[in-house]
This record gives sequence, structure tokens and C-alpha cells, in this order.
Amino acid sequence: MSIRIGILGYGNLSRGVESAITQNEDMELVAVFTRRDPSTVAIKTEGVNVYAESELPDFKDKIDVLILGGGSATDLPEQTPKYASMFNVVDSFDTHARIPEHYANVDKAAKEGNKIGVISVGWDPGMFSLLRMVSTAVLPEGENYTFWGRGVSQGHSDAIRRIEGVKDARQYTVPVEDSVAKVRNGENPELTTRDKHTRECFVVAEDGADKAAIEKAIKEMPNYFSDYNTTVTFISEEELQKNHAGLPHGGFVLRSGVTGHEKEHKHIIEYNLKLDSNPEFTGSVLLAYARAAYRLQKEGNTGCKTIFDIAPAYLSALSGEELRKTML
Amino acid sequence: MSIRIGILGYGNLSRGVESAITQNEDMELVAVFTRRDPSTVAIKTEGVNVYAESELPDFKDKIDVLILGGGSATDLPEQTPKYASMFNVVDSFDTHARIPEHYANVDKAAKEGNKIGVISVGWDPGMFSLLRMVSTAVLPEGENYTFWGRGVSQGHSDAIRRIEGVKDARQYTVPVEDSVAKVRNGENPELTTRDKHTRECFVVAEDGADKAAIEKAIKEMPNYFSDYNTTVTFISEEELQKNHAGLPHGGFVLRSGVTGHEKEHKHIIEYNLKLDSNPEFTGSVLLAYARAAYRLQKEGNTGCKTIFDIAPAYLSALSGEELRKTML
Repeated sequence: MSIRIGILGYGNLSRGVESAITQNEDMELVAVFTRRDPSTVAIKTEGVNVYAESELPDFKDKIDVLILGGGSATDLPEQTPKYASMFNVVDSFDTHARIPEHYANVDKAAKEGNKIGVISVGWDPGMFSLLRMVSTAVLPEGENYTFWGRGVSQGHSDAIRRIEGVKDARQYTVPVEDSVAKVRNGENPELTTRDKHTRECFVVAEDGADKAAIEKAIKEMPNYFSDYNTTVTFISEEELQKNHAGLPHGGFVLRSGVTGHEKEHKHIIEYNLKLDSNPEFTGSVLLAYARAAYRLQKEGNTGCKTIFDIAPAYLSALSGEELRKTML
Repeated sequence: MSIRIGILGYGNLSRGVESAITQNEDMELVAVFTRRDPSTVAIKTEGVNVYAESELPDFKDKIDVLILGGGSATDLPEQTPKYASMFNVVDSFDTHARIPEHYANVDKAAKEGNKIGVISVGWDPGMFSLLRMVSTAVLPEGENYTFWGRGVSQGHSDAIRRIEGVKDARQYTVPVEDSVAKVRNGENPELTTRDKHTRECFVVAEDGADKAAIEKAIKEMPNYFSDYNTTVTFISEEELQKNHAGLPHGGFVLRSGVTGHEKEHKHIIEYNLKLDSNPEFTGSVLLAYARAAYRLQKEGNTGCKTIFDIAPAYLSALSGEELRKTML
């Protein structure tokens, strides 16, 4: 019997989850839920319907895991606890500072409903967190480094789009090669924000817009750009569609540590992702953790879990015996 | 209170574990056990004694986890089940074909003694297995590739040493760069044994030995060398000590997968290790899993576990709350 999946929302991430379901034989998409008028949302999976979010409670016995495709700013803080009392849920909550609060809210709701809520799943937070954590446990004396890119930051692209006179924009986050080389070489450099990443912005301006003002507004934007070396390139709408339509991303986590009675031996652990499609990869990670959520709850576990709390075997459709035979 | 560690055997791996214990504040070395005459074994940790293996049962209540430093050929198949009924144990069993049998034996013994036995820990099997497994669960359509090196293979070095006329030897396993580049590029090549690795042998011959015969014996040795492009270089004993005394190793696991309704997006996951000291890194991994074994058993779990069965949080000395705050 398949694991019955519901998806809330139908943005890029939800579409990534939908696509991933077609690659997992033990999974089945039951329904997509939206805050929009369901008749305006056309999904790719044949024979599966779109419903209003308000109909979700009716699916309590028809869905094994609800995957939340919403954003961390306003959607997930409300949705994940709300639905964790009705369904096993998985989200990609990524506002680091608010994780303790989100964890507590989801834990309470999931325990009340005897369900599992897995939060902060994806690649960062997610796979990168797993690698940081395991590598630090294995090499307790050392430094962690995380580099993102080269890839499109949707949050930074959105921030540019909100500037007056901007029609569209794509922002690429790019690791500084010289800094990466030092880390890979075991030099344990101290790196500022500016040392680690540059930001490349490709901007389509409205007709007659003040390009100098746009460039200034971008480069001086606090948090997003002011701490980085930022380049701004104005391009046509056609060029943006032609060369910047995809959502590639990636990056790498490094742990540089020492062992030995004299700390004389260096070790470098690197985990590296090169992703043609950020939302499809993230959706694939969410789906693997949906499998885990389903199984954990079936075994009688409840409450909030992160990637740290879930034994890897729960992610795979293979049995323990098959895993030991083929993957160990 | 510290986790009290015992070590059985005092070869390279055990010494790596001993060194790692000094880097983990929640760990304490209680004793080392040996099949040799204990008076002939001098360990590095002050105030800790060496005992005969036969005295191990007397330490049943003095040791929380026994780490087994022995080899997979003859030591571990016997030792791990034997001691899993008395102690939580961790081993580095790496004979892939015999893992199911070893798992069953350890599981039975550990359950009888209400203990945890963690088998096949290290980096391959171990960290590499974890990455293969998780990456395959996340990207179910794709290929796995594992490359080892550049590093010293102790098994292959030993095989050369057994040849008549050989005084000493070091064998380096080296990934074939062209093949690695194809995999990183997402070309999903089909690679033979010969396509993946070359073997570099540095040999010290006995005075008057037949070097041509030694070279032939190496290159034609089945399993070890005959399926590889192998180079043999004769060097002096001084040069071997000067340039080849260390035990560096490493390697990388790649998963090359696709997502999307048309399988149109490629993704490459790479996990890469560069290790100055293979036994010290492996010992550090064993110690992190010793912490997990201790905690799992304290929570009432018993039986045999592999790296697939253990939630990552068990490896860390930090609490769940601290992990979520600092690593997620």
C-alpha cells in the first residue's frame, strides 16, 4: 500500500514535491490544497484534484503525510502547528532564529494529535545541517564552513523586485574562490561575510527607470547586500528569460578538524551539492522525510522531529536487510 | 559522569580511538585489553592499565562501551558476538559479503545481554555508507560512485609484504582523474575496476632479491592487483621511512541523479574525505558511535545496529536543544 501524500500550496517547492512523488513507487499524491480558488490551479498529476485549504480537515483519514510547501515568514509558523495535530507533516522552515519556538509549537500540536511533525527539512537547513552535525561529532576539534552557490537566491531576487523601477531580477550567490581554496587546504581562515560570498544581480528595469538609483538601492540594502561585494547588471527581459529562467543552486559544507595526541593530523570533510533545480531537490528531500514521518508515527512515535532525530534507514523504501546488503 | 570506554587490541585503529578519547570531554578510557603479554604493551594514556583479554569479563560493570580494534578476517567475527553479550560494543567490520551473518550473530548476543552492538563503523563502511544510503533515498533515480584515495591501503601493502624477497612496502590507491571528472560532470559513465583506480606500489626489496619477479608477482596477484593498472617502484628503506611513513587516506562518494517530470534536471551530491591519518579518523568515528551505543542502551534499546539505524543526534555530546540552535 502506498504512502498517501497531500501537498499544501502549489508554488515551486510544492511542484518539486509533486514531481518527486512520480519517482517513488511507494508514494501516491492524493490531493493538493490551496488558499487560491482551486479552479484556477492546474496541477501536473492526472486524476488528482485541487481543493481549498479549508477542506483539509475532511482528509484526516485519507492522507498519511501532509507536506507544507509554504514560506517560513508567515505561512509555516501558523500552518505547521495547525496541521500537525491532524496529520503527519513535513515542512522546510528555515528562519534559524525562530526554530526553537517553531519546534515547541509543532511538538505540542503533534503530541496532542499523536502525529509526527518534521521541521526544517531540505538542504540548508536539512542535508547541510546533518553533515555539519555528524562531522562535528566525529571531529570535535575543528571549524565548520558553509558556502552557498553558485545559485539563485529566491529571497534576494524578491528583495530586488520590490525596489521601485525594477520589473524583474535574478540574484546569484557566489562563493569566493580564494576563501574556499584556503578552507579546502586546511588553513582554517577567519572569514567575514564579505570574504565568503559575492552577490551577482541581473536586473530588468522598467522603461525610463533611474538605473543608478536602482543600483544604489540594491548595493546599500541592509542584511541582503550591504555586507557583500555586489555587482548589478541591467539586462533585457528577453535575456532574463533566456539565460536566467532556471533555479539552480548548491553549495558545500566543510569541516576542517584535527586528531592525534599532538593535534598533528588534519582532516577535511566536504559535502557538496550541485543542483540544477533547487525546488525539485528540496522537494525530493521533503518526500524522503515524509516516508520517515509516516513510519515513525506507525511505530507509535509522536511529536516534533528534525533531521537530527531520525535514523537514516527511515528515509529509504528498502528494508534494513536490503540496505545492509547493498549500501553498507 | 563520563562514558567509560574499554579498547580491545592495541593496533593502529585502537591507538586512533585512544587519541580521540582525549578530544571528547564526556569520554574516559578505562582500560586496554590485549592478547599479548600486557606487560609488553605500553599505551599513551597515563594512569590507565593494560590487561589480558581474558580479564575482560571482570570489567562488566566498569566499562560502558567496549571498542573492538581487531581485524575483520578472523578477530571480529568471533570477538564482536562474544563481547556483545557483556558490553555495548562497536566494531569496524568491513567484509561486505559477511555482514548479514555478522549482523545476525551480534544481534542475537546483544539481545541476550540487553546490550547494543554497532557494527561496520568507520568511513567505508561507515560515513560513506551513510552518504550512499541517504543520497539514494533523496534521489532515487541515479547512480552511486565510490572512489578511494589517494591513500595507503594497509591490506594491499600487507599483500605485497608477503611476497618472497620483499622487506617492506606501501601501496597507494589512486582514483583515475578522468573517470572522476566524468562522474562530477553528470555523465553517468559505466566504469570498470580498471577505470576507477590505479595502484602505486613502493617496495623495499631484500638484498639480492629478484626485482623483476617481485614486480611480476605484484602485478599478477588476483583480486589485489591483476584488475588494475599497477606501477611498482623500488625504493630504499630510508626513503620508505622518510616519505611513506604516514597512513593518509580518503576518497569520495558521488550520487548523480535526476529529477523533474521529464528527468530534465541533474543533481550531483559529493561527499569527500581528505584524511591525514586513516586510523585516527576511523577511531574518531568509532568513538562517536560508542556514545550512541551507550545512550541507545540506556534508553532500553538492545541488539545489533548499523549506521543506518542510529539517529544522528545520538552521536553528539550536545543536547537536542543545543543542536537545533547551533547546527540546524
